[in-house]
Amino acid sequence: MQIVMIQDRIVSAGEVDPAHYDRGIFFGDGVYEVMRSYDGKLFALEEHLQRFANSLSAIEITGIAIEQIRTRVLKAFDAAGIANAKIYFHVTRGSAPRDRAWDGSLEPNFFLNLSEVADNTDDRTKGIAVSTHPDWRWKRCDIKSLNLLANVLAANDATRKGCGEAILVDEAGLITEGAGSAFFAIRGQTLRTAPLTANILPSITREFTLKAGRNIGLEIVEESLTVEQAAGSDELLIASTTQDIVPVVKFDGKPVAAGTPGEHAKLLAEEFRSFTV
Amino acid sequence: MQIVMIQDRIVSAGEVDPAHYDRGIFFGDGVYEVMRSYDGKLFALEEHLQRFANSLSAIEITGIAIEQIRTRVLKAFDAAGIANAKIYFHVTRGSAPRDRAWDGSLEPNFFLNLSEVADNTDDRTKGIAVSTHPDWRWKRCDIKSLNLLANVLAANDATRKGCGEAILVDEAGLITEGAGSAFFAIRGQTLRTAPLTANILPSITREFTLKAGRNIGLEIVEESLTVEQAAGSDELLIASTTQDIVPVVKFDGKPVAAGTPGEHAKLLAEEFRSFTV
Repeated sequence: MQIVMIQDRIVSAGEVDPAHYDRGIFFGDGVYEVMRSYDGKLFALEEHLQRFANSLSAIEITGIAIEQIRTRVLKAFDAAGIANAKIYFHVTRGSAPRDRAWDGSLEPNFFLNLSEVADNTDDRTKGIAVSTHPDWRWKRCDIKSLNLLANVLAANDATRKGCGEAILVDEAGLITEGAGSAFFAIRGQTLRTAPLTANILPSITREFTLKAGRNIGLEIVEESLTVEQAAGSDELLIASTTQDIVPVVKFDGKPVAAGTPGEHAKLLAEEFRSFTV
Repeated sequence: MQIVMIQDRIVSAGEVDPAHYDRGIFFGDGVYEVMRSYDGKLFALEEHLQRFANSLSAIEITGIAIEQIRTRVLKAFDAAGIANAKIYFHVTRGSAPRDRAWDGSLEPNFFLNLSEVADNTDDRTKGIAVSTHPDWRWKRCDIKSLNLLANVLAANDATRKGCGEAILVDEAGLITEGAGSAFFAIRGQTLRTAPLTANILPSITREFTLKAGRNIGLEIVEESLTVEQAAGSDELLIASTTQDIVPVVKFDGKPVAAGTPGEHAKLLAEEFRSFTV
């Protein structure tokens, strides 16, 4: 005997879409990826698949092969015919009655959504404002999991303040990364960002940004920044799959240097774009 | 233009159950409660509704009134006719295309599942083994949110070790609580548990256990325990809505005191049960 209610309606358990019993919704028990294509060409497909494999493995979701994921991504991409596509997908441990410990025989659920990448030329050209927020995330941010409420609350706080991104600050006062992006400072001839630890997502765009930095002659420094150091940098920028490199021109309400996109951000963005063709 | 894929099948966006677009699954952007009834009587309904209101408010989900929730819980409970019912429900911010920042006009989603409480007489009589696990949860555990992957991983680790619960230990080596329960030690004539902070769920069963402790003449000490202090206690116990008070007889593989349920745990459980009639 069991009663299921959706909104204010009692429904028979048999009628309920298994999505309602997804461990993804009960616990965020799943992992995800976001990829994109540039002019009809998928960017960094293998890197994203490899990270996804790492995420699956970290939370011990088995029963789905990376080969299957690759096939599905390509099938959706081919079917869409969208030149600049944003591809989100997640795998959860499966649908089952709610119980924290899992049954190893569960079949994982796959969900993919493909749409056109939102144009952010304006942000990339003019730069964005960012605001800081305490980093409330869990201690395994190296896993790209569906537990994103801390990111959601931070992102919404930024939106409310008229900012394009929230920059997360840990209890020691150090910047980890953006709510949905990697975060970089340019100080003199150095490109600085937090080192990869369990508190940081191993961002693929971060890797390509560092590569771009090397290519344009910047010294790479993987050291966390304090809020004060960030605010006093020559340039700031964020980088993410769907936005590329975006200059940050205002930090917690104050202009960054001259308050306009800097020269290095522009060079980095150009170099980055060269990887995508 | 949009492509949605569920498992290996491309489906038209219009056919997809809104559950697949729930911010609960994308982000864990929702909060939940678990309540129970004893012999046909709901236990601590108002306390659970009040906590749920606090959770909704903490993550700023609006558009659903506690009165509606109460009506739905009672409707499901009446329809089920189950004397010892476990009632799980959650509210998420709603279904929408995936974007971290939210649209204030979203309509929240409500889901409820009611089933019979699993009988745990055996655990309550013989006691359980527990094992420790790093507390990987986020920094707002005072909010009963759907971000539970850290709890899931810890609980599964415990299950694998043949244990009934995972006891979470923070970076300072202090015990916060169980993956799905409050945790208590009896040391002499004191009943000790971690104080309520942002790292602890304000457990309703915890409150009733403390009340039971006072009633049987124990001194209440709200101070965190180290792993060593816990292991060396006279008695240990966990408490949760669906399990009541369960003695812990083994801690990380070693017997707690004599390795059998203690006298205080028994008295506490009896006193606790007196609240439920």
